[in-house]
Amino acid sequence: MIRFWGPRILFLGFGNVGRRVVEILADPAKYPRIEDLGDYLVVGIVTRSHGATLNPRGLDLKRVLEEWNREGRFRGEVDAATAIRETNHNLVVEMTPLDIPGRGAEAIRHIRLALEDGSDVITCNKGPVAWAWHELRELAYDKGRGIVCETTVMDGVPVFNLVQRSLKGNRILKLEGILNSTTNYVLGEMEKGVSLEEAVAGAQRLGVAEADPTYDLEGWDAAVKVAALANVLFRPGAELRPEKVERDSLRSVTPERIREAAARGARLKVVCETWRESYHQVTGRVKIREIPLTDPFALVSGTSSILRVTTDIAGKIVITEEDPDLSTTAYGVISDLFRLREGF
Amino acid sequence: MIRFWGPRILFLGFGNVGRRVVEILADPAKYPRIEDLGDYLVVGIVTRSHGATLNPRGLDLKRVLEEWNREGRFRGEVDAATAIRETNHNLVVEMTPLDIPGRGAEAIRHIRLALEDGSDVITCNKGPVAWAWHELRELAYDKGRGIVCETTVMDGVPVFNLVQRSLKGNRILKLEGILNSTTNYVLGEMEKGVSLEEAVAGAQRLGVAEADPTYDLEGWDAAVKVAALANVLFRPGAELRPEKVERDSLRSVTPERIREAAARGARLKVVCETWRESYHQVTGRVKIREIPLTDPFALVSGTSSILRVTTDIAGKIVITEEDPDLSTTAYGVISDLFRLREGF
Repeated sequence: MIRFWGPRILFLGFGNVGRRVVEILADPAKYPRIEDLGDYLVVGIVTRSHGATLNPRGLDLKRVLEEWNREGRFRGEVDAATAIRETNHNLVVEMTPLDIPGRGAEAIRHIRLALEDGSDVITCNKGPVAWAWHELRELAYDKGRGIVCETTVMDGVPVFNLVQRSLKGNRILKLEGILNSTTNYVLGEMEKGVSLEEAVAGAQRLGVAEADPTYDLEGWDAAVKVAALANVLFRPGAELRPEKVERDSLRSVTPERIREAAARGARLKVVCETWRESYHQVTGRVKIREIPLTDPFALVSGTSSILRVTTDIAGKIVITEEDPDLSTTAYGVISDLFRLREGF
Repeated sequence: MIRFWGPRILFLGFGNVGRRVVEILADPAKYPRIEDLGDYLVVGIVTRSHGATLNPRGLDLKRVLEEWNREGRFRGEVDAATAIRETNHNLVVEMTPLDIPGRGAEAIRHIRLALEDGSDVITCNKGPVAWAWHELRELAYDKGRGIVCETTVMDGVPVFNLVQRSLKGNRILKLEGILNSTTNYVLGEMEKGVSLEEAVAGAQRLGVAEADPTYDLEGWDAAVKVAALANVLFRPGAELRPEKVERDSLRSVTPERIREAAARGARLKVVCETWRESYHQVTGRVKIREIPLTDPFALVSGTSSILRVTTDIAGKIVITEEDPDLSTTAYGVISDLFRLREGF
């Protein structure tokens, strides 16, 4: 059952993930099943400080990549809000970076504008999902458009798609996961005897951790993901804000605590959890927990991640992402393109 | 995107899973999201040796369960082929037991009849998927009907749904899983020092193993599942027959081999694998392999199961079913009902 489908796509942001999405779209010989998307045009790519490229008749993606790789920027100049208002698009992919102190306000503005303008929206920015999902989903519904967010949790592993489309008929009772790579990597290094500071520096060298690791270490990134899961997947939606998610700080973990856990045949993990306490009460937590080695959560190392979904009929289903790369995250956007193509 | 939907369902077979499906459908207060299915009627339930119950205006499912629980059978008498021909249904759920020596011939006949008659088909019987999928899918396509088979691998965990709907745009490169409960349970017991014979007897007492465990121990049940996965999930479909799937026998496993694996920090597991060697060549295997304890496959015990899907874009995704019960398997049928409702 295919909707009328002729998307004219506007990308906001063009970081690593955005470039990988365009590389995949530009290479159907290497990724043959991309053809199943049917016809689409990319009508614009707008960045904050590296220029913009627009073409209402559709950009040549190979040339876009050449220009970027040659010059490290685009020649055009337009800001996102103007591009949303003035470009002839019907699908906006919001890929600007998450701004936790600003509670995603800028991305929320972009998405509001895009939906009001009659576009579908793919958001890779977690802010709108954590802080404004209820409002944005209502707006999308009123306008007869879709809003989807597959990359925001577990990179591109289609957890939202799985739960919303492949687990229909179930009530979702609980969600538990290891969803933050930095803390998971750091805990793994600390198990080897590396100090917290050295482990964080190592994660930064690998590109896993941000220059300022505070939001990861203090559980904010995980709390944002917990809010996103609860807001999108519970029915009725949770309206859980990250500020309401209880957080443990990784800075509280001592080498002794790690050794004690190991002595008990267990590992410390930062576990995200959310469940509906009652109709009006959804609880979210980011807890440092001791996980026995017989639990699959104990095996999730490095940048891998895991989510356990507890349902009323199908029971417990666990989905694991093993050693993701940039393509995995890019796939989230492609998954969302398919989902918008097919309706909900 | 909802198809015209007003299914009149005919069940063939009424074993444990069928009864659990009907119990769930009969109790929307307990399973509120079942309402999302919309309107449907169950117009008949036909068993081979426990009678039949038919009502073209729709059976009262609570009364059907009362009659069954009181009398252990239904009062009516009609055979499956006659019921398919003469009942006013448009969806047949094939739940008769798998007949490996007969290569699923009877279930294949039922499904052919049902599709020719213009019905959609849900098959819980693996035989048609392993031995006749290509023919039956072509027939369904010609008739504009659907055929789906979610319960045939990993009980009701929606693996077909996940791969076909939630991983669109990916090429499926490889599938690996632990998919047979009996051998997995028996290997677990043998690790504790129990003999093969005692372990099989224990599995039979628990209802995990059949009275004749040969098909499980010799890898036939697993080979049928490998064929089902390859036939349904590869594109183009594989036409892999269970006879072409290489099989290891559990009878070849000695206590010494289990101890040696343990000494190396590993466990023996019966691993199902299938991948496309070339366009015309799909390989399937059921192998006894030594799995290190750091691999999530090593943690799958008892009746749990696991499937690793390797894709060209999204990378490696692992789906695990933890401690399934009858409801998990029953959910497979419910998942298929939703899938037929929504088209593909």
